[in-house]
Amino acid sequence: MTRIRLRIDFDGENYIGHGRIELLELIGRHGSIAKAAQAMGMSYKRAWYLIDGFSAMFREPLIERQHGGKGGGSATVTPFGRRVVEEYRAMEAKALTVFVEPVGFLEAHLAKPSPARAKPKLKSRKAT
Amino acid sequence: MTRIRLRIDFDGENYIGHGRIELLELIGRHGSIAKAAQAMGMSYKRAWYLIDGFSAMFREPLIERQHGGKGGGSATVTPFGRRVVEEYRAMEAKALTVFVEPVGFLEAHLAKPSPARAKPKLKSRKAT
Repeated sequence: MTRIRLRIDFDGENYIGHGRIELLELIGRHGSIAKAAQAMGMSYKRAWYLIDGFSAMFREPLIERQHGGKGGGSATVTPFGRRVVEEYRAMEAKALTVFVEPVGFLEAHLAKPSPARAKPKLKSRKAT
Repeated sequence: MTRIRLRIDFDGENYIGHGRIELLELIGRHGSIAKAAQAMGMSYKRAWYLIDGFSAMFREPLIERQHGGKGGGSATVTPFGRRVVEEYRAMEAKALTVFVEPVGFLEAHLAKPSPARAKPKLKSRKAT
């Protein structure tokens, strides 16, 4: 099934994309940045920088961290963080409805059988 | 100014994203894959694979190549290729209108001054 993913680029380096939203959702589900990182197959360090940059975009934090004892701390998504996820997911869902015509046009022109196995259309790699 | 970029994922490995559309536009403008690659700051090889995979998605070609003499050949975008670019750009433009409310909500919560220079919200990188 066709999916539409959105990347919203604000001024400067600020953006919201699919990866950031998925990470935020997984932090909410697992209650931990480390576990969310593991679920996405990325290093803890990378997940930390991703969520840190994402959170720094806004005046309000997206997550809150509780430092625990021996077992380590946990992380929870703030009400504002949940709202950001909801707005993004609602936009994604709406995009498929709004763009049903152009997406239908493109789908109708896809190669058959499965284009992943279709032969390349270009015959050589000689520079043109 | 805020921009919304779309990535349309069809079944299998087929997708249309900003990079593929930009490359196709640049091939049209420059009449050459090599010059389009240069304009995007990517290698000819990478541009070739990108446009080859993009073109193989569809039953109709996106570009046509003319093999030239000493000076090398040229590449032109087919009417179908131009239509694909138009549909994508129209979707991008429409997205900003359709999503004016959620984008406005997110913009209103951006940190000031410029979030690119804002301090990180998280204080440590200790695993949680």
